[in-house]
Amino acid sequence: MELKLRNLKGTKDYLPEEQYIRNKIRKTLENTFEKYGYLPLETPILNYYDVMASKYAGGAEILKEVYKLSDQGGREIALRYDLTVPFAKVVGMNPNLRLPFKRYEIGKVFRDGPVKTGRNREFTQCDVDMVGVKSVMAEAEYIAMAVEVFDKLGLDVYVSYNNRKLLSGIIMSADVEETRVNDVILSLDKIEKIGEDGVCQELIEKGIDDEVIDNLLSILKLGTDNPLKYFKNNCSNEAMAEGVKELEELGAYLDAMGITSKTRLNPFLARGLDIYTGTVFEIFLSDGSITSSLGGGGRYDRIIGGFLNNGIEYPAVGISFGLDVIYTAMSMQNKENFKSPIDFYLIPMGTEIETMKLAQKLRTNGFYVDVEMTGRKLRKSLDYANKERIPYVIIMGEEEIKAQTVKLKNMGSGEEETIAVEELIDYLKSKI
Amino acid sequence: MELKLRNLKGTKDYLPEEQYIRNKIRKTLENTFEKYGYLPLETPILNYYDVMASKYAGGAEILKEVYKLSDQGGREIALRYDLTVPFAKVVGMNPNLRLPFKRYEIGKVFRDGPVKTGRNREFTQCDVDMVGVKSVMAEAEYIAMAVEVFDKLGLDVYVSYNNRKLLSGIIMSADVEETRVNDVILSLDKIEKIGEDGVCQELIEKGIDDEVIDNLLSILKLGTDNPLKYFKNNCSNEAMAEGVKELEELGAYLDAMGITSKTRLNPFLARGLDIYTGTVFEIFLSDGSITSSLGGGGRYDRIIGGFLNNGIEYPAVGISFGLDVIYTAMSMQNKENFKSPIDFYLIPMGTEIETMKLAQKLRTNGFYVDVEMTGRKLRKSLDYANKERIPYVIIMGEEEIKAQTVKLKNMGSGEEETIAVEELIDYLKSKI
Repeated sequence: MELKLRNLKGTKDYLPEEQYIRNKIRKTLENTFEKYGYLPLETPILNYYDVMASKYAGGAEILKEVYKLSDQGGREIALRYDLTVPFAKVVGMNPNLRLPFKRYEIGKVFRDGPVKTGRNREFTQCDVDMVGVKSVMAEAEYIAMAVEVFDKLGLDVYVSYNNRKLLSGIIMSADVEETRVNDVILSLDKIEKIGEDGVCQELIEKGIDDEVIDNLLSILKLGTDNPLKYFKNNCSNEAMAEGVKELEELGAYLDAMGITSKTRLNPFLARGLDIYTGTVFEIFLSDGSITSSLGGGGRYDRIIGGFLNNGIEYPAVGISFGLDVIYTAMSMQNKENFKSPIDFYLIPMGTEIETMKLAQKLRTNGFYVDVEMTGRKLRKSLDYANKERIPYVIIMGEEEIKAQTVKLKNMGSGEEETIAVEELIDYLKSKI
Repeated sequence: MELKLRNLKGTKDYLPEEQYIRNKIRKTLENTFEKYGYLPLETPILNYYDVMASKYAGGAEILKEVYKLSDQGGREIALRYDLTVPFAKVVGMNPNLRLPFKRYEIGKVFRDGPVKTGRNREFTQCDVDMVGVKSVMAEAEYIAMAVEVFDKLGLDVYVSYNNRKLLSGIIMSADVEETRVNDVILSLDKIEKIGEDGVCQELIEKGIDDEVIDNLLSILKLGTDNPLKYFKNNCSNEAMAEGVKELEELGAYLDAMGITSKTRLNPFLARGLDIYTGTVFEIFLSDGSITSSLGGGGRYDRIIGGFLNNGIEYPAVGISFGLDVIYTAMSMQNKENFKSPIDFYLIPMGTEIETMKLAQKLRTNGFYVDVEMTGRKLRKSLDYANKERIPYVIIMGEEEIKAQTVKLKNMGSGEEETIAVEELIDYLKSKI
């Protein structure tokens, strides 16, 4: 019986042309992270369930989506659902780590939840975190790093940022009822995606008092023209004052780093309810062609200490990039642009030995070389090279080999040249 | 209550200095694979259990070690235990793939089996496979690729190789009883690890007939001095003749590629019982300081067709590199040599804004820069830079900044220089 091959819902195979671009994105991220002083960490996918499920870790909502299993030794195991809990675990298990501890990790995480576009059950997270720094210099560095990543990838983005203390201050000053604070924050958080009208509509639907909505509206109407100055001049509580102070400091660093024009203060950005304690930031495509963020993060000073519950404070900042959404953005803008890494496709015509010899000589000279090995007709081999988008083909006929030459075919122009073998390397170096 | 943090048996955290080297190995592999015309593929870790457990896949032995779970939709799931079955699955699910299909995949696999040194339950495989080529040109290319990989990594290795048809011919000619063939092959296969005496001892212990052992001994005694010529002149059956023919052809390619001196024909190499149908090869450290192989592979023409069971032939060759054993080999030879990628550690002394400005300017110029952000004492910061093996520190004192200078400290020599900010970039470029 033929086997019924299929992939699980929420998982997929990334075929070579797509995976090649995904790897390029990964390499750009890794390289940039290292340029900012972060080194790689690799944590296991398999973990003790009780460690992953600690009440200070991901919370009850996420536990519903954890893949659980047990091994032959009867241990209760969870597949990791993020890279933050494993990071906190490493910090806790290695008390002699030098602080600040700056690491990145790019790896698979698993969530048995609803599948929709851009939301798989098995997906790759790219996280950078730092523990041991209280200064907003850390946040400035993360924003600069994000700007550099997308600059290298050729994507035009801006970084939306805020401070949770300012947001708390705003909520307090607008007289939001204690019980409605979370509802209001979750609506305000959507402003980048659904706009001011959308936010208003949601607040009305949620039954928030008209007066409160009016208060918030007056702030909404400020737009992004120096809202910080407004809050500074209309500071009505301590949370707001602290938020303003931290944002001013952050702004000074962004300015010194020359990246202010790539950022926008959005006083309603929250990034959810549970994690962040200070600065938050989120990266969006400037043309808005994808409304989801390409990455984001912020300061979470209470998470690691809460998770480890050992009485030690762990000030921390993190950022997470979404590999899949970045790939989607690049392919929408035709920035994915698959170009084969192979320079030359060598086709032997009864000259296998000489072809293998030349292939190796070319590789020794740094070229990327593929060799036709099926013995098929020349036409089929040229068709293959064409579809694989290999720029040059070298045809090694018996006549040519006797005359110590090869035929070089430019697959773009179709042009063919006959070149002496001894001049070949220098000639090819001038082409590639 | 403090959380009891721990890792599962057979899993581990790779901390930054180790993971940085592991990433370097991974990048060397990826880069070399692409140079030989292979592109990346990424397959899911989560799979339908019935697909992974098909009787033509890994076999009954491996199924005992498969991690099984079910998701909320009640699907029976297996974590992948190798990268070959997922490769075969992709070939089967994508009938329009252009052949030959050449891909590599580097990823985690999981086996719930005994844990010993170098044998974890969650580990990284680095596989390269090609489907659609019958010629031993393919095997020659794999051996050349392996030689290049270890040359780049600075490890002195040799590639032991053989052909399963030759081995079958030898077994037949030595009059091994049908029922003892597998026992004999498994003992002969160990010759590289336990030597000729060890193999003899095992055969005696297994109760193999004295006469058969004598027959095998006479071949064992041939050593590695041109055994191929011996078998050609003493060819006693068709399997042996076919094996000799393929090995001669392979030898001609290895010779043309200039890598014969890095290879050794070992007529007893088998690489297990079930998979390989022609050429097999295995890579060993030349100095024998690690007896396990660093990688290996061969031709397996019947596996994919058997797995897919669709009546189509899939000639295939593959090689697998062991990331952990390569890392072990490099660290034993002090080739792991962790050198921080960070060029400069910037220490502000009340000059945070100017420091962040300079950090970004240095990064724009391509330097790798870390910034001290905790406000700690200079001595502690220098100690940190030293332990992180960062080669240079730049100290930004208020006096220096007023004078438009910085202090550059070479952490190796301890030497300090005062340099004008405007000359700094050019000066640093001359240093790094």
